[in-house]
Amino acid sequence: MKVAVVGASGYTGLELLRILLRHPRTEIVAVTSEQRAGLPLGEAFPSLAGLSDLCFERAEPAALAGRADLCFTCLPHAASAPSVAELRKAGVAVVDLSADFRLADPATYERAYGPHGAPELFGAAVYGLPELHREALADCDFVASPGCYPTSVLLPLVPFLRRGLVEPRVLVDSKSGVSGAGRKLEAGFLFAEIDENVSAYKVGGVHRHVPEMEEQGSLAAGEDVVVTFVPHLLPTIRGIATTVFTRPRTSLPQAEARAVLEEAYAEEPFVRVLPEGATPSLAGVRGSNFCDVQAVMDERTGSLILLAALDNLVKGASGQAVQAMNLMRGFPETEALLEAPLVP
Amino acid sequence: MKVAVVGASGYTGLELLRILLRHPRTEIVAVTSEQRAGLPLGEAFPSLAGLSDLCFERAEPAALAGRADLCFTCLPHAASAPSVAELRKAGVAVVDLSADFRLADPATYERAYGPHGAPELFGAAVYGLPELHREALADCDFVASPGCYPTSVLLPLVPFLRRGLVEPRVLVDSKSGVSGAGRKLEAGFLFAEIDENVSAYKVGGVHRHVPEMEEQGSLAAGEDVVVTFVPHLLPTIRGIATTVFTRPRTSLPQAEARAVLEEAYAEEPFVRVLPEGATPSLAGVRGSNFCDVQAVMDERTGSLILLAALDNLVKGASGQAVQAMNLMRGFPETEALLEAPLVP
Amino acid sequence: MKVAVVGASGYTGLELLRILLRHPRTEIVAVTSEQRAGLPLGEAFPSLAGLSDLCFERAEPAALAGRADLCFTCLPHAASAPSVAELRKAGVAVVDLSADFRLADPATYERAYGPHGAPELFGAAVYGLPELHREALADCDFVASPGCYPTSVLLPLVPFLRRGLVEPRVLVDSKSGVSGAGRKLEAGFLFAEIDENVSAYKVGGVHRHVPEMEEQGSLAAGEDVVVTFVPHLLPTIRGIATTVFTRPRTSLPQAEARAVLEEAYAEEPFVRVLPEGATPSLAGVRGSNFCDVQAVMDERTGSLILLAALDNLVKGASGQAVQAMNLMRGFPETEALLEAPLVP
Amino acid sequence: MKVAVVGASGYTGLELLRILLRHPRTEIVAVTSEQRAGLPLGEAFPSLAGLSDLCFERAEPAALAGRADLCFTCLPHAASAPSVAELRKAGVAVVDLSADFRLADPATYERAYGPHGAPELFGAAVYGLPELHREALADCDFVASPGCYPTSVLLPLVPFLRRGLVEPRVLVDSKSGVSGAGRKLEAGFLFAEIDENVSAYKVGGVHRHVPEMEEQGSLAAGEDVVVTFVPHLLPTIRGIATTVFTRPRTSLPQAEARAVLEEAYAEEPFVRVLPEGATPSLAGVRGSNFCDVQAVMDERTGSLILLAALDNLVKGASGQAVQAMNLMRGFPETEALLEAPLVP
Repeated sequence: MKVAVVGASGYTGLELLRILLRHPRTEIVAVTSEQRAGLPLGEAFPSLAGLSDLCFERAEPAALAGRADLCFTCLPHAASAPSVAELRKAGVAVVDLSADFRLADPATYERAYGPHGAPELFGAAVYGLPELHREALADCDFVASPGCYPTSVLLPLVPFLRRGLVEPRVLVDSKSGVSGAGRKLEAGFLFAEIDENVSAYKVGGVHRHVPEMEEQGSLAAGEDVVVTFVPHLLPTIRGIATTVFTRPRTSLPQAEARAVLEEAYAEEPFVRVLPEGATPSLAGVRGSNFCDVQAVMDERTGSLILLAALDNLVKGASGQAVQAMNLMRGFPETEALLEAPLVP
Repeated sequence: MKVAVVGASGYTGLELLRILLRHPRTEIVAVTSEQRAGLPLGEAFPSLAGLSDLCFERAEPAALAGRADLCFTCLPHAASAPSVAELRKAGVAVVDLSADFRLADPATYERAYGPHGAPELFGAAVYGLPELHREALADCDFVASPGCYPTSVLLPLVPFLRRGLVEPRVLVDSKSGVSGAGRKLEAGFLFAEIDENVSAYKVGGVHRHVPEMEEQGSLAAGEDVVVTFVPHLLPTIRGIATTVFTRPRTSLPQAEARAVLEEAYAEEPFVRVLPEGATPSLAGVRGSNFCDVQAVMDERTGSLILLAALDNLVKGASGQAVQAMNLMRGFPETEALLEAPLVP
Repeated sequence: MKVAVVGASGYTGLELLRILLRHPRTEIVAVTSEQRAGLPLGEAFPSLAGLSDLCFERAEPAALAGRADLCFTCLPHAASAPSVAELRKAGVAVVDLSADFRLADPATYERAYGPHGAPELFGAAVYGLPELHREALADCDFVASPGCYPTSVLLPLVPFLRRGLVEPRVLVDSKSGVSGAGRKLEAGFLFAEIDENVSAYKVGGVHRHVPEMEEQGSLAAGEDVVVTFVPHLLPTIRGIATTVFTRPRTSLPQAEARAVLEEAYAEEPFVRVLPEGATPSLAGVRGSNFCDVQAVMDERTGSLILLAALDNLVKGASGQAVQAMNLMRGFPETEALLEAPLVP
Repeated sequence: MKVAVVGASGYTGLELLRILLRHPRTEIVAVTSEQRAGLPLGEAFPSLAGLSDLCFERAEPAALAGRADLCFTCLPHAASAPSVAELRKAGVAVVDLSADFRLADPATYERAYGPHGAPELFGAAVYGLPELHREALADCDFVASPGCYPTSVLLPLVPFLRRGLVEPRVLVDSKSGVSGAGRKLEAGFLFAEIDENVSAYKVGGVHRHVPEMEEQGSLAAGEDVVVTFVPHLLPTIRGIATTVFTRPRTSLPQAEARAVLEEAYAEEPFVRVLPEGATPSLAGVRGSNFCDVQAVMDERTGSLILLAALDNLVKGASGQAVQAMNLMRGFPETEALLEAPLVP
């Protein structure tokens, strides 16, 4: 299958290329970038030297229609919607990695991101979390790939929400490596500012990823889920570690809590429920499409603690997008994705 | 004043020496260590070469009596109690950095640490958090210096507990640099295991520091405070960043929430309430005795989020111990401690 | 082909498993370890959970004979030789990752490592640097896989030595990530000691890797090559960056210097000669089997500076071992090895 | 004494403030910055909150004349010269941290930096390396504070050059933390690009710091010294580790090589010659004004290897500038500078 990557000059674009280059069923026919048009891939990304002869180009979305069967769009939110609209109009299948098509409620979108660039397509995409929406993905042409933070919250939490086991008021403390912010040139992302440092950010306001968690969480719970979310910036390149504090509605012994996760994910290739006593770690998933989860019932205080770790650029972005593509096209779901994490 | 450091070969010992070497009113007369006895300080700790002519010695506590007016004891918990008992019997003032004398309830101590090595002294020490117990410290000879995690939780939380503003069920997510574990030779603390990694540990059981938080919290609240505590290990050498999730009993607008902290700490030299919108960071306190705090009311979800950052080896251990000594001896409280953080 | 990994519980063992798990032509039939015998792979290495059902076993080398066609031995030097001897006697092909069979001169070996454990096999292995000894590898059953430091020195240097372009007195400054030391439990490898730190080690004595550089270098030069070698420990998990200072025998303009490398490596899949002006970086090769090289002629001072970067666990160890196996068995040389580096 | 810091918004400015705030004989009367004028110090640099009431101002240099007795100028090269000229004209003593007044030869300056902004002052400043020019500093009003790389090269090398013990052709491999590049907003200094990475830069051309090394080296040697210099960027915030490869003119046994350093620095408070067998490390000097040095004679290969480590922001910049000021004003040379390194 011929695929193109639109807006490929950032970290999610680079990660997509890394994965697609080893995919036996896809051929990358185009990579586009405004800033880097004309540059060979291996010059823009020295790590890819020798692996591809492609050059970045400044292609209009419509011009990709004849060339690619499916496009991954890695543009910033708001910028993505119009390009996606053009691609869809031209009949190209799309996996969009921006936030533009993840939400169901237009008002919520506008509060978080401002006016939507393709309102006619609002609600048209399938939310690309295979563990929640595998069937819908299997037969669609348009996917909104989930955010990294929401994936790390929803995977451990949804099984409990679906069964109505926990109260719908949820507290989340997430820690993310800096690649989650992309390649932004801000003083706050300089090495000398990040190394040996950790701090919370955007506390108390509505972080843009919260509506996504609340919408999908509410969908699973069948009632309104409210999330207090405190994200932190870590001195790591990759990875998200998330801790979710919840409260069981009725007694939930430790063994039952873990069984909820084990039953939910027994057949899932990319969600690993860790053995009793083990906790998810960024190292355990580095460079891979795994999301490791754990449930710990603190019986003394009545808190159910859910833990998750994933690589924000793989299961939190580009790997998940390829997983969705595999499902859309009927390829084996794990194709190009079942690599061992890079440890140490 | 003549001081000695007992069990000085670990990180808190080294940090104490770093601070005491610049203290204008103390003379270090002895540093003891089982393993390093005989070694010049500058050989055991190359960073101290040229700064002191002392050698480690294997002194019995009692033998220090004639030589030192005050001893800092940096021994592991359980090992500390008998040494402290000897020193106290010999009339030496003690600031103990272990956990052995921090708790008020012997049963709680035994559950967490096993049998106590000097039960006759249980309850004899003042809990050395100057911001809570300054007056008691001013006239005492025996101090139990607080743990790093409890300091980071109590400083932002206690002002709210004292006024009865929040419910006594508190959720805490803490992140600590690896020096908090001391110089332990375990595979889990090797660079290749910690770097680019983050994970929670000791989740759900009672972390040893929880009783200390709950005791001091309850004391401040006048009712039982219960803490769900999830500690994480960070890829940093120093620093603790703590996020406390609480729930106001009645409406507490953002401005009032911050005012609670500002009023509590207006006169405190080492607790800095950050400006509205700023969040505490490890970098902002690195190498210093400051604890930076912030309060953020998430009005949409009804959660009050309290944030703190401190250097676990300074305000979380050795700096706090010197601060207590300054108070015990009537020195200016900030002596040797008002250094600017090492930034970048 | 059925393969086994002997002594698989360290970092090179883990890395071999990571690579072999994606190799389409090999089946891992056994992984052995003294300490971890009985443990499922996914428990010993949580990153491998879900990827393999193997358990560590405590197999005698001879017992592997019927089960595996080829063994990778990842034992420490000296311990490796007797196991390799048994395997060879039983007719099993071996790729040995220790230092035991890399040297040609027994006296040199003994000076560096002490008595040899299988003197009858001394000199029997092919030195497994495919870029130097591809033909010999193609038809052999016993390979001594090169050390990480020597690979990083030889690849940029040998093309100049072969043509007699530089003086045989060479100065090398190498910097290595800590995984090069394996999983050793020494205080010096703790995170708090390595992070934010760099230092040289084993300066001036004969580092164990020097004889390997000098032997292979002399072989290429046809005269005695002498190497002054200063290794440094870096605060990174992976990677070696090497700077070689040499002196051209006659005028060697910059363009010609680079052309020497370009000609030598035009057909090599894993050695990338960087574009003029670019310098090799650890990031550019992280997790991959590439070795990036560059030549810079400092015409003002008459020094030819050669630069190389590789991942010590891949091209410096396990990747190179698989590359050798591919050649030994007539598989495509790049099988399982042409992965894009993990960037960022 | 009243001092001002001109151009204080970068890392060297911040470090100067950190040191001056603890200096018992100086009062900081002004800190200037174009971009940050009006901001309280504690807002621009949160780490300094609570330590100073100063605000940044946009003062003309001349306007500082009446207010400050001595100015530290932390402006970029070329921008510094005219400001320094104004200050000197107004009779203010100056310690300039830029490169503008370090060189003796105007032609060399212009080749490296372009036209000089105050040619009339060229050669008027004393080169502020106290270990080489203590006497000249003791009675001067204008100091050019040395660069970080040259300090790390000259301190271990000059004792050998002065005695004519080594050949004047010197090879230097230096590794620097990123704060050496200041707070520059370039993609190459982002955390995700620097962490887990190392690479050489500006290889082969004349790095701007080379003329400074060669001028001071030649002055010490009494003959032309030529330096081949390869700088590397490290994933650390602070620190420079330098390895110098030299060749003794005649036999120089190890004991004599170390004795050369020991004799040269026996009385120096900030240069520590490490014990036999120890190597300088960034950690050993972190946050301090020490420069640790070592000499190792590799008798087998005839290379004398000199090693040095310093904190680029302290002994490599702001600490050294304060050391010069102490000498200029007859204060104790170690005032405010004899702090223990921040370890771990």
